Amino acid sequence: MEFVKNAIGRMVPTEADGRKLTPFQGAFADPLAKGNRPGPPIPHSHPEHKGGERKLLGSIKEAIQKTGLRDGMTISFHHHLRDGDFVVNMVLEACAEMGLRDLTLAPTALFPCHIPIIDHIKNGVVRNIQGSMNGPIGAFVSKGGMETVGVLRSHGGRVRAIEDGDLHIDVAFCAAPCADDFGNANGLFGPSACGPLGYGQIDSQYADKFVVITDNLVRFPCIPFDILSTHVDYVVVVDKIGDPSKIVSGTTKITTSPGRLYIAKLAAEFIKNSPYYKDGIGFQTGAGGISLAVTKYLGDFLRTDGLKAAYINGGITQFAVDLLHEGIAEKLLDGQVFDTSSIDSLRDDVMHERLNLCMYANIHSKGCMVNVQDVGFLGATEIDIDFNVNVNTHSDGMLLHGIGGHSDVAAGAKLAMMVLPAYRKRIPVIRDAVTTVTTPGETVDVIVCDMGIAINPIREDLIEHFKGSSLPIRDIRDIKREVDDICGGQPEPPKLGDRVVALIEYRDGTIIDKVMQVL
Amino acid sequence: MEFVKNAIGRMVPTEADGRKLTPFQGAFADPLAKGNRPGPPIPHSHPEHKGGERKLLGSIKEAIQKTGLRDGMTISFHHHLRDGDFVVNMVLEACAEMGLRDLTLAPTALFPCHIPIIDHIKNGVVRNIQGSMNGPIGAFVSKGGMETVGVLRSHGGRVRAIEDGDLHIDVAFCAAPCADDFGNANGLFGPSACGPLGYGQIDSQYADKFVVITDNLVRFPCIPFDILSTHVDYVVVVDKIGDPSKIVSGTTKITTSPGRLYIAKLAAEFIKNSPYYKDGIGFQTGAGGISLAVTKYLGDFLRTDGLKAAYINGGITQFAVDLLHEGIAEKLLDGQVFDTSSIDSLRDDVMHERLNLCMYANIHSKGCMVNVQDVGFLGATEIDIDFNVNVNTHSDGMLLHGIGGHSDVAAGAKLAMMVLPAYRKRIPVIRDAVTTVTTPGETVDVIVCDMGIAINPIREDLIEHFKGSSLPIRDIRDIKREVDDICGGQPEPPKLGDRVVALIEYRDGTIIDKVMQVL
Repeated sequence: MEFVKNAIGRMVPTEADGRKLTPFQGAFADPLAKGNRPGPPIPHSHPEHKGGERKLLGSIKEAIQKTGLRDGMTISFHHHLRDGDFVVNMVLEACAEMGLRDLTLAPTALFPCHIPIIDHIKNGVVRNIQGSMNGPIGAFVSKGGMETVGVLRSHGGRVRAIEDGDLHIDVAFCAAPCADDFGNANGLFGPSACGPLGYGQIDSQYADKFVVITDNLVRFPCIPFDILSTHVDYVVVVDKIGDPSKIVSGTTKITTSPGRLYIAKLAAEFIKNSPYYKDGIGFQTGAGGISLAVTKYLGDFLRTDGLKAAYINGGITQFAVDLLHEGIAEKLLDGQVFDTSSIDSLRDDVMHERLNLCMYANIHSKGCMVNVQDVGFLGATEIDIDFNVNVNTHSDGMLLHGIGGHSDVAAGAKLAMMVLPAYRKRIPVIRDAVTTVTTPGETVDVIVCDMGIAINPIREDLIEHFKGSSLPIRDIRDIKREVDDICGGQPEPPKLGDRVVALIEYRDGTIIDKVMQVL
Repeated sequence: MEFVKNAIGRMVPTEADGRKLTPFQGAFADPLAKGNRPGPPIPHSHPEHKGGERKLLGSIKEAIQKTGLRDGMTISFHHHLRDGDFVVNMVLEACAEMGLRDLTLAPTALFPCHIPIIDHIKNGVVRNIQGSMNGPIGAFVSKGGMETVGVLRSHGGRVRAIEDGDLHIDVAFCAAPCADDFGNANGLFGPSACGPLGYGQIDSQYADKFVVITDNLVRFPCIPFDILSTHVDYVVVVDKIGDPSKIVSGTTKITTSPGRLYIAKLAAEFIKNSPYYKDGIGFQTGAGGISLAVTKYLGDFLRTDGLKAAYINGGITQFAVDLLHEGIAEKLLDGQVFDTSSIDSLRDDVMHERLNLCMYANIHSKGCMVNVQDVGFLGATEIDIDFNVNVNTHSDGMLLHGIGGHSDVAAGAKLAMMVLPAYRKRIPVIRDAVTTVTTPGETVDVIVCDMGIAINPIREDLIEHFKGSSLPIRDIRDIKREVDDICGGQPEPPKLGDRVVALIEYRDGTIIDKVMQVL
């Protein structure tokens, strides 16, 4: 494997598993924005009464057979069922039983419930994973358990890779909480309701074959349409696609930790005093405890000041829905939901709209949502004095998290704010250099932590704006020194082998960093 | 021009304006379902604060300039504003003033309000039209006013042509009743509200450049999304995009003619007694007087029998909305609306869903709506004893109407029913041979007219099913003879020149008939 130094000084491979790689060249260089998308095969469908093929099949195995899935092909899944998903395991078990080998998995994300994948890797059923690996599968890959190199992409980056032809999906399997026998599907109804199915839409548009797997077959037509029959080859009904208790929460809980609430309060105060706090502000929120608290505080400020948010883009929870119903947020844009009342709102509120993932964050489009967003608040496992952010690995080098929309939102939002504790369990979060770069420092504007607020020096405008502010605005190096004092210095460097186990792909398709095997 | 006889015996050209043509080979032969779709260029967008281009422009002329529109290119429009549209004329006037020449127009449909196009053809601004030409423009083309050969496609056929690369659109101009400055748009709000914007969606996906033209710019984000910012290059605000009084009716009126009501009653009775009348029936309706009456009668039958329609696919009007609200129709699928209360329903009713035109009727997809429809009732200008249908020309040869979804619905529906008077103004509608074949007889199951009902002999199953029925089921030749007696025989053949002025393209891209110049 040959390496080259990229624009932020990380050595990254020039090739992996036969694929030529382009090093990261800066957050807005976008060297791969050229050429044409691949043209998919022209499909054809006969009317039902003229020999049109029935899409409804008897089993997952029959679907695997009918799609022509073969050794070495790439299959995909969405993660709307999160840690409650049964579909990935069911499909892989069927593949294993049918003797398939060397599959590449291209899920939007894998969760701890997908731990059986480890055996499928060991047994040769699965050869490669291109997608987020949360928890045990990431740990297994970190320890060198997978022979090939994993690829992690942001939400927008995955859509880009599929649309541009970097990631070709042979067969996509789509868990559908509600579907008809012609393949129309949504996630709004049924025991496994999960909200929108936006993560699976791009797969439906580009996969050679697309299989809907549902535990709730309804009479045609299944509306609203999230997945369209025009893109579906087969439909399979199973007993259960997931464990409802792990798909969405009954309620999402705000943090009760005084430390976390302080961070959220600081973040909200910073936004309120920033140039972006105005009638019509648009911001992105998530389901993390701090993020929910920031949303709540921001809502309080807007209410007090008689202002309205034009929209909240999320990661929708009851907190955002309440702001919509109260009229403080005019609109909700919804890539995924985290609690049941958000599903009700998505179904019933005209001004709560589903967002496909290309719309959310694909820069190889004519304009995605994150690119016009005012404020995004994001988390991190580590952040360094150059403002580079790591959300993938821990300081011991273990790959335990996906990218999500992190690098997309950071690059797109006018105010990209990292909201996090300065240390966790006596391990500094603020580092000299992050273990892995997920998001380049040039796209990170502000760090808000329990030790204060650090503005990125390249944001001279913001530094000027906040001159004289009573907020605890500090140099990041000062904060780091204080954290080091508390924690007894920076952690030991991780013990790494010399094999690359995964790549961190930037949203534009270039390689921003690599993940090395942990010894 | 060379000609070849196609599968229904019509002589059709093998080439027109440099484009090679494939003769019609039967309704379900689909000889062009092969190869790959063209891959569009990979676009790119920068975040707003990093030099992302502003989409909002000052004028239509500026948009024309920015898109790089040049002589000889193809521009497109949708027809959701119908005879109230101002946008086609505004854009063409700007093109003319800027000295552009030899444009091809690819609208979904043109209406009488677009009569200024005739001067643009005469002056060389417009060279060709590929799209429905309702009224005066069709008449002008019939009389030989356009040097090139016009192309008429069905709703599904137009989508197919665009997706498969037969019809490449350089710049699409999209009238939008509601839009934001990032290009998101819908037709649900504002003075020119028209309902869904489904006809324009395919253009947004495939046109090299896409311009939204609105008279109702709203704060970002404009939701629900019908047109997505990911597909929009520019946005232009104008005073008025149309005349609201001609876009939708306040109310849609059912026919009051006893003769038409009798036809509608016969049609509804036939459906009720057919094998397709059952709980879960799905049917398509339109806004014509007879069609509305059939919908009403069918609704009455369902109510009486305690049955529910799974869906109505349309052409949505208050009549369909009432059936939804009453619970007699479970769902509405909406390609276009015809009255204001249908717009309210489309906005507010979860079970009233927008339908894009690929979903509606593109056979080069993995499954479109018309392909699984139980019943479709359609009109015609002429129908012949082989059940071939003409909806484009009159018996004098004049091209005055578009295809709409006619050949799509006829081929797709299990029961394709033509509902029409047997003669109009003493001119027989039932002919020995139609002037122009729009829809092949093999896809037409039943004719219902004021002289009775004729079942297509190829539908032996239906003939058997209706044996002993008290309905006035007759041989089409008998009906024709009676009509001839009333009208004094078949009309004189039209006086035609020897020049082909337009092609009737079947939904699969083959040529089913030609339209000759009228002398």
